[in-house]
Amino acid sequence: MPPKAANAVFLLSCPDQRGIVAAVSDFIYRNHGNIVSADQHSDEEQGTFLQRIEWELSGFRLPREAIGEAFRPIAERFGMSWDLRFSDHVPRVAIFVSRLDHCLHDLLWRQRIGELRAEVAFVISNHPDLRSVAEAFGVPFHVHETEPETRGASAEAMLRRLREGGIELVVLARYMQVLPPAFVASLPSRIINIHHSFLPAFAGARPYHQAHERGVKVIGATAHYVTAELDQGPIIEQEVARVSHRDSVADLIRKGRDLERVVLARAVNLHLAHGVLVYGNKTVVFD
Amino acid sequence: MPPKAANAVFLLSCPDQRGIVAAVSDFIYRNHGNIVSADQHSDEEQGTFLQRIEWELSGFRLPREAIGEAFRPIAERFGMSWDLRFSDHVPRVAIFVSRLDHCLHDLLWRQRIGELRAEVAFVISNHPDLRSVAEAFGVPFHVHETEPETRGASAEAMLRRLREGGIELVVLARYMQVLPPAFVASLPSRIINIHHSFLPAFAGARPYHQAHERGVKVIGATAHYVTAELDQGPIIEQEVARVSHRDSVADLIRKGRDLERVVLARAVNLHLAHGVLVYGNKTVVFD
Amino acid sequence: MPPKAANAVFLLSCPDQRGIVAAVSDFIYRNHGNIVSADQHSDEEQGTFLQRIEWELSGFRLPREAIGEAFRPIAERFGMSWDLRFSDHVPRVAIFVSRLDHCLHDLLWRQRIGELRAEVAFVISNHPDLRSVAEAFGVPFHVHETEPETRGASAEAMLRRLREGGIELVVLARYMQVLPPAFVASLPSRIINIHHSFLPAFAGARPYHQAHERGVKVIGATAHYVTAELDQGPIIEQEVARVSHRDSVADLIRKGRDLERVVLARAVNLHLAHGVLVYGNKTVVFD
Amino acid sequence: MPPKAANAVFLLSCPDQRGIVAAVSDFIYRNHGNIVSADQHSDEEQGTFLQRIEWELSGFRLPREAIGEAFRPIAERFGMSWDLRFSDHVPRVAIFVSRLDHCLHDLLWRQRIGELRAEVAFVISNHPDLRSVAEAFGVPFHVHETEPETRGASAEAMLRRLREGGIELVVLARYMQVLPPAFVASLPSRIINIHHSFLPAFAGARPYHQAHERGVKVIGATAHYVTAELDQGPIIEQEVARVSHRDSVADLIRKGRDLERVVLARAVNLHLAHGVLVYGNKTVVFD
Repeated sequence: MPPKAANAVFLLSCPDQRGIVAAVSDFIYRNHGNIVSADQHSDEEQGTFLQRIEWELSGFRLPREAIGEAFRPIAERFGMSWDLRFSDHVPRVAIFVSRLDHCLHDLLWRQRIGELRAEVAFVISNHPDLRSVAEAFGVPFHVHETEPETRGASAEAMLRRLREGGIELVVLARYMQVLPPAFVASLPSRIINIHHSFLPAFAGARPYHQAHERGVKVIGATAHYVTAELDQGPIIEQEVARVSHRDSVADLIRKGRDLERVVLARAVNLHLAHGVLVYGNKTVVFD
Repeated sequence: MPPKAANAVFLLSCPDQRGIVAAVSDFIYRNHGNIVSADQHSDEEQGTFLQRIEWELSGFRLPREAIGEAFRPIAERFGMSWDLRFSDHVPRVAIFVSRLDHCLHDLLWRQRIGELRAEVAFVISNHPDLRSVAEAFGVPFHVHETEPETRGASAEAMLRRLREGGIELVVLARYMQVLPPAFVASLPSRIINIHHSFLPAFAGARPYHQAHERGVKVIGATAHYVTAELDQGPIIEQEVARVSHRDSVADLIRKGRDLERVVLARAVNLHLAHGVLVYGNKTVVFD
Repeated sequence: MPPKAANAVFLLSCPDQRGIVAAVSDFIYRNHGNIVSADQHSDEEQGTFLQRIEWELSGFRLPREAIGEAFRPIAERFGMSWDLRFSDHVPRVAIFVSRLDHCLHDLLWRQRIGELRAEVAFVISNHPDLRSVAEAFGVPFHVHETEPETRGASAEAMLRRLREGGIELVVLARYMQVLPPAFVASLPSRIINIHHSFLPAFAGARPYHQAHERGVKVIGATAHYVTAELDQGPIIEQEVARVSHRDSVADLIRKGRDLERVVLARAVNLHLAHGVLVYGNKTVVFD
Repeated sequence: MPPKAANAVFLLSCPDQRGIVAAVSDFIYRNHGNIVSADQHSDEEQGTFLQRIEWELSGFRLPREAIGEAFRPIAERFGMSWDLRFSDHVPRVAIFVSRLDHCLHDLLWRQRIGELRAEVAFVISNHPDLRSVAEAFGVPFHVHETEPETRGASAEAMLRRLREGGIELVVLARYMQVLPPAFVASLPSRIINIHHSFLPAFAGARPYHQAHERGVKVIGATAHYVTAELDQGPIIEQEVARVSHRDSVADLIRKGRDLERVVLARAVNLHLAHGVLVYGNKTVVFD
């Protein structure tokens, strides 16, 4: 029996065609499900249809483990990629950091007050500096150094730790290291990074210095999925703040901290609420 | 035969219950409609379900005039209030103004470049000042004075003009007169006003003076449907701008102009795109 | 000898008249000071001139304690109210809280990373709940209960604690009690409160519930100095965020937390940087 | 005798050093001027001091034409670049457009209602399309075609027209042609362009298409002075708007129009109010 308040969520994508919405909602209705939220998007250029649909498991006639099998004929008819998730599943998350604590601190605090619906299994860093921050929240902290000569071995060790820890999402909370391609490839759309600029402007190193040098009147932060190409992955969320000639680089860094932690938290929460669908190099965000 | 690119839109509301989404989408699918957009909202406190669903008429098996009759059984089963609209219908709109031209000018310009999907049938004012603005866009301009002693007769004359002109939406584009209750009652959720503050702050007269007096750091504008109570109707859209001690009342008025015209245009466009549902004293905005 | 990097700051106000800027800057220059920042404002309605001027003490010919006496003739000539502050003075601050930790946590974190240039002497609360938050940052935590019958005595005890602690600024970080008039009067322009709405909208209790009920499309937060009248004091800073019909009261509270902590931190930092001048019921914010 | 309400404005820059503020304000005071506004900025990296200071000419002891000569010794002492302007001078402006009318229409409307303190001498375009827009506001419209083979001659003809018309500022209001280097060099910091992205992102052609392709969640507009390098000049003003996966390229273009016209108007007004100082490839904006 499913627990009382839990919902099921389908995340679907397929070639756009007639009858998808009707077929999916009919499937849920026939099995006595009550749809609490449905949103969809058609990308007309690519001819792609994407949908998020959520319904109450209370009263639903199929047990969780049978839903997939029952839905398979519909999925096959429309050529769907699909994912079935449950709102009461609390995923295990690992946070990667370097030396700056603002995003880590913010995520751990949000987790503690119940805003971030995940279990933070551990924190990984290439420096020992933030151990006390993690431990103050009761979260284990592991150092994995990333010297040039040990880089490959270190990435493998981290990956092993993620697997053994049953990690479903990695959050790079100002982790200032580039992860090797094999690492990234093993967690597709499961690594979220915060970059401290409004991408695609100021990709790469020291974006606040670049912004100050260019004399922009607005700075930003971008949360995106990590892909093989640096700072080029699908964007989940962005936010900006006004600046002026009065702001030094230090001021941009200070103002940027408030942007970064909010943008990263929003992106992680959207992901955890099963609200983000990736297609091509873009996201559809159902909020 | 429906013209090629036209879509149909259902705007529905009813007591929340199982099977609504499935029944409506199945109705469309059974008649060979392709759903291009669907959005819904459940107000849990009030137990109200609201939906906007749009599908292509091309290939749909029912002619436009038969859709309502065919849908009736579903509507009755769920106790729905509902509205059927067509995307190729271009509604006739009347704009009411007094002496300030920024909103009028902006709406007429947007209409001319094709952004505002409506026909502006005429402009009504209690002053002759803005005749040249209307006429520069080829729109008739009618003065209806509103002296205290002729107020009632004037409102009746205006209402007659609206009826004879087949007006479906009245836009108060900085019309500085209070419309009598009978006038308002005859156009429920069909009169949109722009108020130059972020309501509920600074309702009533001279909001920028009030804002300056209070020393706020943010000003705003609010577009809302007009109801019997002044500045209390359902809010469609709001926007704000930062101000500082350096801004005089004249600066607030100047900055506010940019807010007002954008907020009003967005609200009118949302209404014209059949994106706004009113329930209680609130709106659901499907954008 | 003044320490190397310290600056002096004058905050002035007086009736507007010729020669103020010249007299003040000449005073500084004659004594070999280098002006690093100067900003001013004339309120034309009230005929009031306000200025903030900051200069390097390094090389300045007057010792700190002699500046006031030397400046007195100029102040008297123009009828100035004035304040002299030093950038290396680290004021002692007390934070008042009730049960919500987001603002407290944020302020303590900012203090720890060096962003909040103050010493947090202690935290006062009417509940024991947040003791662990304060103590995790090494800050003493005192409970002062505020039952109706002990209210007066409690306010006196708190005031005594502030005096004995040499507190120069009180920050109400979601302290859900009204402070008695005598308490407020003893700390003029030295108590900063965060209110969880864009004042003057939704003053008083439960502003997010009020906002949800009204159906606004924007919510806000306001930091202001506390005066005798509830939620009516001079506004220092405000910020807003967009919301929609999809947001429940719980969502508004969640989104509001991010607003509140940022707005309060900005206001406290502006105050600590000697950037806020109060006149009438307004502020001039030199940032 | 200077007319009653006029003010004088100094825009200064020089190597940062002691005594500048005192010397300049003393110069004004000694001549019986009342300073109504003063703002300054020190760029510590470059060691540059910049100031804007404005005073009333009413009662000032020097006639306008003698101010420069009297100020020369101070300017020489500090090695200043400086500019003297008068608030009652109404500069002559030329607007360049191609086929899109939103910025042109907006600027002409602002000029008509008195918000843009300039005389629009004429409009130049490489297409005849917008003639009726200019003429509806009573502004002459000149077509200068820019075919590859006549490009050089055309630029010379335009430049001649600007000179003969006494033009002090050129506004590129979505003028889709690159101006030749000699043209740009002859009007340093006197050509303002609006680019339809938040630069440096999406420089070059079709920025909304680029933004849609990249899947950003925020779009922007940038007003900047034109320099030899395309889209690389000093930024005066930027603004952004949120977008989502629901926005097509056409939606970005529509939302962008509202950004572009506001950003361009703000930049032009800041320039006309003598509020912008260029140094290096940046601006200081005194607002």
